[in-house]
Amino acid sequence: MIDFYTYSTFNGKRVAIMLEETGLDYQTHIINLAKGEQRSIEFLEINPSGRIPTIVDDGLTLTQSAAILIYLAEKSGSFLPTEASARAKVIEWLCFHATDISPTMFDSFYLTQRCQPAQPQAAELLNQRIFMLYQNFDAELAKHEFIGGDSYSIADIAMFPTLPADTTEFFQSYPNLQRWFQQVSQRSAVQIGMQMPV
Amino acid sequence: MIDFYTYSTFNGKRVAIMLEETGLDYQTHIINLAKGEQRSIEFLEINPSGRIPTIVDDGLTLTQSAAILIYLAEKSGSFLPTEASARAKVIEWLCFHATDISPTMFDSFYLTQRCQPAQPQAAELLNQRIFMLYQNFDAELAKHEFIGGDSYSIADIAMFPTLPADTTEFFQSYPNLQRWFQQVSQRSAVQIGMQMPV
Repeated sequence: MIDFYTYSTFNGKRVAIMLEETGLDYQTHIINLAKGEQRSIEFLEINPSGRIPTIVDDGLTLTQSAAILIYLAEKSGSFLPTEASARAKVIEWLCFHATDISPTMFDSFYLTQRCQPAQPQAAELLNQRIFMLYQNFDAELAKHEFIGGDSYSIADIAMFPTLPADTTEFFQSYPNLQRWFQQVSQRSAVQIGMQMPV
Repeated sequence: MIDFYTYSTFNGKRVAIMLEETGLDYQTHIINLAKGEQRSIEFLEINPSGRIPTIVDDGLTLTQSAAILIYLAEKSGSFLPTEASARAKVIEWLCFHATDISPTMFDSFYLTQRCQPAQPQAAELLNQRIFMLYQNFDAELAKHEFIGGDSYSIADIAMFPTLPADTTEFFQSYPNLQRWFQQVSQRSAVQIGMQMPV
């Protein structure tokens, strides 16, 4: 049984989707970031860096959503190819998203919501960069059914929760992303993961 | 023979160190970013996203330094444990650096060097966040000889090139990082990788 500590962030939702997809046994523990529960003594004993998502599996405490996705893929033998080239491409696209798009989204949030004085102009410049980076994903999805190849993988799972909540205007620039989004959003594991924690 | 396309960025140096560490055969091709060579027709044919580092190995074209490190570790059977828990911790710390510190460094650079108008105040706020995040790495290195465990790994290789060029003042806050830096900087593969391309 995997203990899963999470909240309704895109990092948390990635892992929620993956746990649902793999069918592994897990138990969810909500760490309410809005109430500061990530800094509670109880949670800091589990994860001293005070971050979610965190999983605890048979004595292993693991954070970092991309690392958790790779671990769960290897544990379950699913959503990450074993052949070297196909595997490398999935990890490449996982990293492209996890090192370029996700952190830039976070920095944009951080500069407007966590900094004094807030930096709306800088955040907008970062948002424009994110928008530009999605062109690479749209071009990839013109060539392949999924991100990084022809099979659904952890690269798709990592990206799904980060798309804008209101996708109507966004998708006008990205027809291939739209096709992919509609396809992936029909998966029941994705639907359940996106609602966690309720 | 691996073809290695690179320039003197920290992403490029990571892969240079790894290639040296593994002893794999490779040939270096310099893509001078200052001259815009990443946008040349020749390079865009190799990598349409126009980014370095890129490796081409037996028909596989691969970008994203963290993905390349994982690929080369699996290809060479070195610098990434095979036991599930130890392996997960190395990938966790690799991701912590690759998704939090490296991109925030890039965003800080981007906001001052690539944006009009430049955003020095926002960049400084991001720099303060980076400085704070290094506390986690210093605490980790108080517990372990290397990042994510007791063996030198791709987590160490990913971090080394990103430390400030002038480390004197920086290390006053981070004694464990300093011990680690001095130890890792003695490796000949690190010394060669840090000088590439000459």
